[in-house]
Amino acid sequence: MPTAVDDLRIDGSRLHRRIEALGLIGAVHGPNGERGCARLALTDADRDARDLVVTWMRDLGLTVEIDRIGNVFATLPGTEPELAPVMTGSHIDTVATGGRFDGNLGVLAGLEVLETLITNGITPRRGVTVAFFTDEEGARFAPDMLGSLVYVGGLALEDALDIRAADDDARLGDELDRIGYSGALPVPAVSFPHSYVELHIEQGPILEDAGIEIGVVEGVQGISWTELTISGRSAHAGTTPMHLRRDPLLVAARIAGFVRDLTGELGGDQVGTVGRLDVHPNLVNVVAATVTMTVDVRNTDESLLQDAERRLAEFVATVADEEQVDVRSRTLARFEPVEFDPAMVDVVELAARRLGHSTRRMPSGAGHDAQMLARVCPSAMIFTPSVDGLSHNIAEYTAPDDVEAGANVLLHVLLERAGLG
Amino acid sequence: MPTAVDDLRIDGSRLHRRIEALGLIGAVHGPNGERGCARLALTDADRDARDLVVTWMRDLGLTVEIDRIGNVFATLPGTEPELAPVMTGSHIDTVATGGRFDGNLGVLAGLEVLETLITNGITPRRGVTVAFFTDEEGARFAPDMLGSLVYVGGLALEDALDIRAADDDARLGDELDRIGYSGALPVPAVSFPHSYVELHIEQGPILEDAGIEIGVVEGVQGISWTELTISGRSAHAGTTPMHLRRDPLLVAARIAGFVRDLTGELGGDQVGTVGRLDVHPNLVNVVAATVTMTVDVRNTDESLLQDAERRLAEFVATVADEEQVDVRSRTLARFEPVEFDPAMVDVVELAARRLGHSTRRMPSGAGHDAQMLARVCPSAMIFTPSVDGLSHNIAEYTAPDDVEAGANVLLHVLLERAGLG
Repeated sequence: MPTAVDDLRIDGSRLHRRIEALGLIGAVHGPNGERGCARLALTDADRDARDLVVTWMRDLGLTVEIDRIGNVFATLPGTEPELAPVMTGSHIDTVATGGRFDGNLGVLAGLEVLETLITNGITPRRGVTVAFFTDEEGARFAPDMLGSLVYVGGLALEDALDIRAADDDARLGDELDRIGYSGALPVPAVSFPHSYVELHIEQGPILEDAGIEIGVVEGVQGISWTELTISGRSAHAGTTPMHLRRDPLLVAARIAGFVRDLTGELGGDQVGTVGRLDVHPNLVNVVAATVTMTVDVRNTDESLLQDAERRLAEFVATVADEEQVDVRSRTLARFEPVEFDPAMVDVVELAARRLGHSTRRMPSGAGHDAQMLARVCPSAMIFTPSVDGLSHNIAEYTAPDDVEAGANVLLHVLLERAGLG
Repeated sequence: MPTAVDDLRIDGSRLHRRIEALGLIGAVHGPNGERGCARLALTDADRDARDLVVTWMRDLGLTVEIDRIGNVFATLPGTEPELAPVMTGSHIDTVATGGRFDGNLGVLAGLEVLETLITNGITPRRGVTVAFFTDEEGARFAPDMLGSLVYVGGLALEDALDIRAADDDARLGDELDRIGYSGALPVPAVSFPHSYVELHIEQGPILEDAGIEIGVVEGVQGISWTELTISGRSAHAGTTPMHLRRDPLLVAARIAGFVRDLTGELGGDQVGTVGRLDVHPNLVNVVAATVTMTVDVRNTDESLLQDAERRLAEFVATVADEEQVDVRSRTLARFEPVEFDPAMVDVVELAARRLGHSTRRMPSGAGHDAQMLARVCPSAMIFTPSVDGLSHNIAEYTAPDDVEAGANVLLHVLLERAGLG
């Protein structure tokens, strides 16, 4: 019934209702009516959101499985059980001031695709699995994309379980037990999917600026996260002559300024951000004793990214020496740029065009679980526009039509990969 | 008995024991055996310290009185009760990483002077009052020197009681009630002292570098505290092109760097410090939404201080415009430079030299309660050396001989001012 299948569409209003319902968990409200989410990984809010999505999965009669790092998988069996299933998914954890679409869209669109297949009595040859991965944001437990990284064998389970939370120093393994999501499936997975495709909001302004409906993601920027702990000498702000100061906050400020200047020099895709900075003792009339800060630099070109890292390290050493402070540097996360499978990318582009959508091939500026899955199976991503390019912001928004378009592209990519009996 | 009085000396070991005992309240320990204090104003630790000092005052049979802002006064009556008493004092609150001497020395040395007079059966013509003033540091409730400022009428009681804590947003008046130090004496005081002299550690390196025992303080630097609240736009650190960013943390960093550069340009006595900086949401992969920071600039010359303030404001406006962020500026504290009473300064210098100590006239880089008292009576200060110039630091230290020397100068200045029957 190829015609029927080609005409198959997801139920946009049903998908919209689930996005709204999930967005109520850990909801945060802005001054102008914005409604975002604060669901840091493995918090009570994350548990409540997981429980809701798992309930929806079970209501569809899907088999739900959980692995030892808390990744959740719901599978619609295929007609040929011996074949590896096709997988889609994303994450449902958010940053402290996150939106309702980041991650959640990919998970709920995958669920909507399965409900569409079930209600239309369509059973593909391969099974179709919808997954949500633990701690994709890395906002509470670094590195980001942690769950999918452990799933593909990029980080040992024991090491992951011992990671401490940035906010309350809680141990990841303890938090996983506490919320009841320490599952039985081994990690890394015993067998990997046939292929993986993830629908996600762009989180940037490119598609909207160009008036494009679907982003065909060819790869992901390389990411480098560094934590710098700068130790100087606490002293009285009024009586300590400037030339005798060893001020870690001044050094942190010089570094933050340098990061911005560096992106200007390197140009192109290079981005750099200082997003976290903690001062101790943090008092108006005391030269600080210590400052801890993070530097996030990203580039689609590995050699340029390494260049940025090297120049940052050189600057840090120079300014630390000038102010006579000590600096300890720690890598919180480091991922090389990723290129998705060309055949998968073609499938995404073709499906989008068949549905009559305008498309653009583009890299992803953000890290995604798909880049971890790309290590073990052919993978690709579908982007939908983000209004004003906003994400990691409670004002994050993607229009219903764009959400529906992205979900329909996902449906047809999954159908093409899973095949029909 | 002038000879006997000229030979009078305080008991250094008794004073040392009290400094050690008071230093145990809110004690914080450093990695190399340093022992400092964390006794922020109106906390439980501050209450415990107040209770201990008041107990010592009462044990000496002194009349203890508390005013409505929590300033505490203990008086040894003179032979001529109709004469205004001579006052000494300081504070016993500390910064979060403070030392055992800052403030505490002046209060306990004053107490030691009274005990010396009592045990030697000496009753001066004028009464002698030892005071400790509320929230001199301003570390928890801005402005600093708050208690003495209210005492002299520089800040209305109602306004002071409504000030909120920088750490937990507690209301000053509520905290004062909570720790039981909301007293009965009206503020501003009904009558002011005949004169005021305060012993304090230098909190800087000048005396130690010059090998001088006693600093004769001629005045106090002007102080300007500004709080800047910078609002930008929170966004994803990976997907937001640099040219579209409105990053308040970058602006804060540029400002902190400018403050250091400005002190270099202005030179002389100009100092400038960014000691407090709070970032929201403070996450590695999120461009910050808001940053709150403080800028502390000080100069002995009011016109130069105004120049520094003007240039800072101009820079803030420029950099805020470049990054398209909004900045709200609030003055937390502003005190013009103070010149102490020349006659009082002479008395301090003469007393120190009579005791055989080397002296140097100098300004104070830090704010002190004495500058508030200077508004209502002839005032001056005595400085003792600080090892390595460290203060607002748990490694703050002043050698026993220097402590004893300072206390003996205080004794003889108070005797000279109070007069003998």
